[in-house]
Amino acid sequence: MIIVLKTEPDPAEVARMEQDLERRGLSLHAIKGQNTQVIGLVGDTASVDEEALQMYSCVDKVLKVQEPYKLAGRRFHPHDSIVDVAGRKVGGGHFAVIAGPCSVESEEQVLSIANDVKLSGAQFLRGGAFKPRTSPYAFQGLGLDGLELLKIAREKTGLPIVTEIMGQEFVEIFERDVDIIQVGARNMQNFLLLREVGKTGRPILLKRGLSNTIEELLMAAEYVLSSGKSRVILCERGIRTFETATRNTLDLSAVPVLQKKSHLPVIVDPSHGTGHWDLVFPMALAATAAGADGLIIEVHNRPEQALCDGAQSVTPALFDKLMKKLGRLRNVLNEEAQEEVSV
Amino acid sequence: MIIVLKTEPDPAEVARMEQDLERRGLSLHAIKGQNTQVIGLVGDTASVDEEALQMYSCVDKVLKVQEPYKLAGRRFHPHDSIVDVAGRKVGGGHFAVIAGPCSVESEEQVLSIANDVKLSGAQFLRGGAFKPRTSPYAFQGLGLDGLELLKIAREKTGLPIVTEIMGQEFVEIFERDVDIIQVGARNMQNFLLLREVGKTGRPILLKRGLSNTIEELLMAAEYVLSSGKSRVILCERGIRTFETATRNTLDLSAVPVLQKKSHLPVIVDPSHGTGHWDLVFPMALAATAAGADGLIIEVHNRPEQALCDGAQSVTPALFDKLMKKLGRLRNVLNEEAQEEVSV
Amino acid sequence: MIIVLKTEPDPAEVARMEQDLERRGLSLHAIKGQNTQVIGLVGDTASVDEEALQMYSCVDKVLKVQEPYKLAGRRFHPHDSIVDVAGRKVGGGHFAVIAGPCSVESEEQVLSIANDVKLSGAQFLRGGAFKPRTSPYAFQGLGLDGLELLKIAREKTGLPIVTEIMGQEFVEIFERDVDIIQVGARNMQNFLLLREVGKTGRPILLKRGLSNTIEELLMAAEYVLSSGKSRVILCERGIRTFETATRNTLDLSAVPVLQKKSHLPVIVDPSHGTGHWDLVFPMALAATAAGADGLIIEVHNRPEQALCDGAQSVTPALFDKLMKKLGRLRNVLNEEAQEEVSV
Amino acid sequence: MIIVLKTEPDPAEVARMEQDLERRGLSLHAIKGQNTQVIGLVGDTASVDEEALQMYSCVDKVLKVQEPYKLAGRRFHPHDSIVDVAGRKVGGGHFAVIAGPCSVESEEQVLSIANDVKLSGAQFLRGGAFKPRTSPYAFQGLGLDGLELLKIAREKTGLPIVTEIMGQEFVEIFERDVDIIQVGARNMQNFLLLREVGKTGRPILLKRGLSNTIEELLMAAEYVLSSGKSRVILCERGIRTFETATRNTLDLSAVPVLQKKSHLPVIVDPSHGTGHWDLVFPMALAATAAGADGLIIEVHNRPEQALCDGAQSVTPALFDKLMKKLGRLRNVLNEEAQEEVSV
Repeated sequence: MIIVLKTEPDPAEVARMEQDLERRGLSLHAIKGQNTQVIGLVGDTASVDEEALQMYSCVDKVLKVQEPYKLAGRRFHPHDSIVDVAGRKVGGGHFAVIAGPCSVESEEQVLSIANDVKLSGAQFLRGGAFKPRTSPYAFQGLGLDGLELLKIAREKTGLPIVTEIMGQEFVEIFERDVDIIQVGARNMQNFLLLREVGKTGRPILLKRGLSNTIEELLMAAEYVLSSGKSRVILCERGIRTFETATRNTLDLSAVPVLQKKSHLPVIVDPSHGTGHWDLVFPMALAATAAGADGLIIEVHNRPEQALCDGAQSVTPALFDKLMKKLGRLRNVLNEEAQEEVSV
Repeated sequence: MIIVLKTEPDPAEVARMEQDLERRGLSLHAIKGQNTQVIGLVGDTASVDEEALQMYSCVDKVLKVQEPYKLAGRRFHPHDSIVDVAGRKVGGGHFAVIAGPCSVESEEQVLSIANDVKLSGAQFLRGGAFKPRTSPYAFQGLGLDGLELLKIAREKTGLPIVTEIMGQEFVEIFERDVDIIQVGARNMQNFLLLREVGKTGRPILLKRGLSNTIEELLMAAEYVLSSGKSRVILCERGIRTFETATRNTLDLSAVPVLQKKSHLPVIVDPSHGTGHWDLVFPMALAATAAGADGLIIEVHNRPEQALCDGAQSVTPALFDKLMKKLGRLRNVLNEEAQEEVSV
Repeated sequence: MIIVLKTEPDPAEVARMEQDLERRGLSLHAIKGQNTQVIGLVGDTASVDEEALQMYSCVDKVLKVQEPYKLAGRRFHPHDSIVDVAGRKVGGGHFAVIAGPCSVESEEQVLSIANDVKLSGAQFLRGGAFKPRTSPYAFQGLGLDGLELLKIAREKTGLPIVTEIMGQEFVEIFERDVDIIQVGARNMQNFLLLREVGKTGRPILLKRGLSNTIEELLMAAEYVLSSGKSRVILCERGIRTFETATRNTLDLSAVPVLQKKSHLPVIVDPSHGTGHWDLVFPMALAATAAGADGLIIEVHNRPEQALCDGAQSVTPALFDKLMKKLGRLRNVLNEEAQEEVSV
Repeated sequence: MIIVLKTEPDPAEVARMEQDLERRGLSLHAIKGQNTQVIGLVGDTASVDEEALQMYSCVDKVLKVQEPYKLAGRRFHPHDSIVDVAGRKVGGGHFAVIAGPCSVESEEQVLSIANDVKLSGAQFLRGGAFKPRTSPYAFQGLGLDGLELLKIAREKTGLPIVTEIMGQEFVEIFERDVDIIQVGARNMQNFLLLREVGKTGRPILLKRGLSNTIEELLMAAEYVLSSGKSRVILCERGIRTFETATRNTLDLSAVPVLQKKSHLPVIVDPSHGTGHWDLVFPMALAATAAGADGLIIEVHNRPEQALCDGAQSVTPALFDKLMKKLGRLRNVLNEEAQEEVSV
């Protein structure tokens, strides 16, 4: 941590701050420039609140040197993490596709889609039991009944299930019944929930909040990981910008940035990321080319009658075509992968 | 709702869509332009999912005519709502200031600050029991012990208390013990929580999420109001933009916009909105001049030792000076207020 | 254009507005809903200022039905435009790579890089003669001397040259000497300049402004095209968002969106779009997979000594590897391309 | 400048970088932390390109210690600058209002409005001769004819005139005829133009670009000031965010932030900042309460027939009411101003 002092700081205030910091066991290294004086802090600075430092009247600003995430960061975990669910792997070169309807609507619907996406090669089935909706008057999902239908689909197809948790009151049920627990974008900074799901031991699919930075996503993962049991899959799903032609702006450069800063697998959601079914195909290819470790895609057998998010769902036929194209694309990306590592 | 058709729509698909819509009891009015054909929907369009409509291949886009909030909107509630807590009023010309520490740290601290802000004229005491923090390694608040300290401060000063709820598991306790329940920016779209707090009958202080639009804020209020018991105070507290000189960008034009669209009181949080104590004074004045119905301000007796958000807390002395200035400012604003109404 | 009226509009004001509009030759179609009344305008609405309409006190809001760009839009130009520069084509299935140094620094530098990128398969040479820099104290480019060096490189390598124009005073020189005139992000809405370059007959590479919407980009293209002589290549180069881990947020979904709305070729700049050389490789692949018609990439032989933007330049060796990978990727994307068209 | 090294940097690369830096006359101060090593640079770091530094493979990141603007910053210019135009002052406690039509449409229009705003107390007349418009098919202003009409209005009313320059080709005319030259938001980073207007000696009204940071605004002012003759008035006029209820988001906290970082006067444009005439009144009051040194406001005698931006223009009657209210508001703000200085 670097403290930049004001132009002509009050020496007494500087001395008082230095004593406060030394009392916490930190060592201080001053550098005097022409117009500016800075103090480098050495030691366990994780406990130092940079904002509180700014209250000393002698401080101009505080610069962070180290990233604040230790468990999620690559510094102390140089190798890619691989999340393994019943033999289906994500990360470290393993690519996985999660597909299914936005919301579970009926047994017929979820079974039909689950069979289709399995045939096309999806490794996991997704489906919403509880649906967060902007309007209180919109369809809010089947709730726990929807979860039961997902379990039936799992039994019939063998596909592990991925579904979103909406609050702490469901942690016990999800720990028992769900293969990968999704924490949605709106809950990315629901810190109490993050701690609790981190204790389940189930892998957590953590979606980036629509206005959260990459660093905040990694800090949210740090919350989950600090509970000690669960592993984390990160998911880019679009951020909020001024552009209105797409529902969100899919930030694909987040994929290589996250992979550089973190060892965790990174997947992409082109359905929510764009909000339009005809953008899902190109953006799924783009996400894969950017190096994503997987995709999560909404598939619906009758999109125009979907009870939610129909506009961003692809049909099983288009999904099948996409999976074939992805296979050939992945072959090209994997060629000489070793060579590239040495770039 | 207006449906814009594609340039040369498939007549069969148009017919199919029209039948589907008429079956729902809506009447259709077509207008043919030179290059474009639109269809106006008349009837109860609240049940029509505009996204699902976009799945008909003949549809180019769907335009909303009516705002989707009925209980929060001014259309059917032309008069300002006034929230009354033990005789202290907010809205409809009544201006209220909520002040106190970011987080409750000790009995001595909260009592000292509560006495100070009361003497300066604050009508409500705020204080965080649970603190949402970006880092799992930062101070997370005293929890329910903090709430007990707030209750002691209420008893000693008579100030009603305002504190943030972090999840559904606390609804019962907050309903019993808290005078105004704050739903924080990160929970603004925690829809299950919104519904539950709406059943308590306690007024809800609803903060705008840092990337949520004004319409989304009103839809969140709609969730609370649709539960039928609680009233809502809206709070602008800064949105996330590209600017990094301030923690957030305080969107003061949201104040008159919200007052035009909604009958609910609108207050402003210049502490979180800026993140710097020396911006609180000018932005509190600015918010008041913009027409806010109140302010919520962080006050700390020793900001440099605050366990959180010290940088954005003002001292009791500065708060006192601010309250005096606000009083004189409000006098000027209220002069000829009737005249202005007719503008 | 659809005019939504206020709840209880003043009939006299409505009549006055209707007369004003009918006087302009527009025909009006009223639709009365339960709570809302709308008026559809039929005729040449391009001349109607939607903002001026909002000044009639009876108007609640105005909704646009048609996109405001006619020359740039696909509606009246259903087939892809192909820009042809001395036999090198961009658009309509033709993929082109423009490569070269951020700024021209010396004859040795630009010749060395030009030879390298030509060998690797680039079709065009880029290089900055004038460099817009945030600081007045930073290197501002060699100016017209830099342009002379580009011309030498063109003569030696046969690569057509692409360089950025900084103001109207250079239009004559650029018309004579430059093969593709680049209008940079900061000048995307320099409307006088857009009109002038549109008269040169040279193809215009039009970069999206860092805070401009897709619609604004198409309106800027409309300015160029309305001058009647020049063709336009659109370029996505990153937009400004709250995320700071990358210099900008590369909006790859803009590629398929632009291709849907417009017939113009769309290329991507992964160098400025990310600001980091190690993100250029994955994002160049991703842009291509998203369907871009080409790429513009900064290549520098000694990036750490570059006079500007060194951090985002790749070496000739890495560029060569990228070009090989792109070739194989393009083969996969082109397979069964016809099939996909029918999706 | 602080260089943060990677975890296990290559010692040879570090040595090479250190030699390169010492060769430039900089002195280096290393601080070794537990996991991180940083190097502080002392000397004239303005010439060091932080991005080029990132190309050394041993560098993790580079942190700036000093602000990059010297002429615009307060560090070396602690006292408020006052811009004086024919005895009318802005800054340093002097408050000025610039008012007039968005675009000059006719002699009758501009004279009528000029007389009105003068009577209400405006010190300067604004009016657009050239209008930047998003659509090539919209009214683009009267051009130099418009400037002649402004000169007539100046002669008749004595009000100095403020109008926007659109390119370098107009510098000579504006230097001769215009009292305050406005550089619009779209030209805020037209660096060649900034340099040229800086040589005129006329005060420059520099508007913040709609996606530019406060630091970028100050760097643009630095360009003007580095030409040595002109003074600068900064203008906040709204930034682009995700919110669509207002045309832009007026960033009023920029006012105190700019005043803290810079000695230049700061005024606010509530007309463009909001885009709606009925928000101009409250936001003008708010800007003044936030401490702005002045306002620039669009006034039109027949807003619904304005050829541009009618929706954001107030009538002369409302402007008059606003000026009266502003006067009383300023009295309250100025009371005990000295006292506040000592806060």
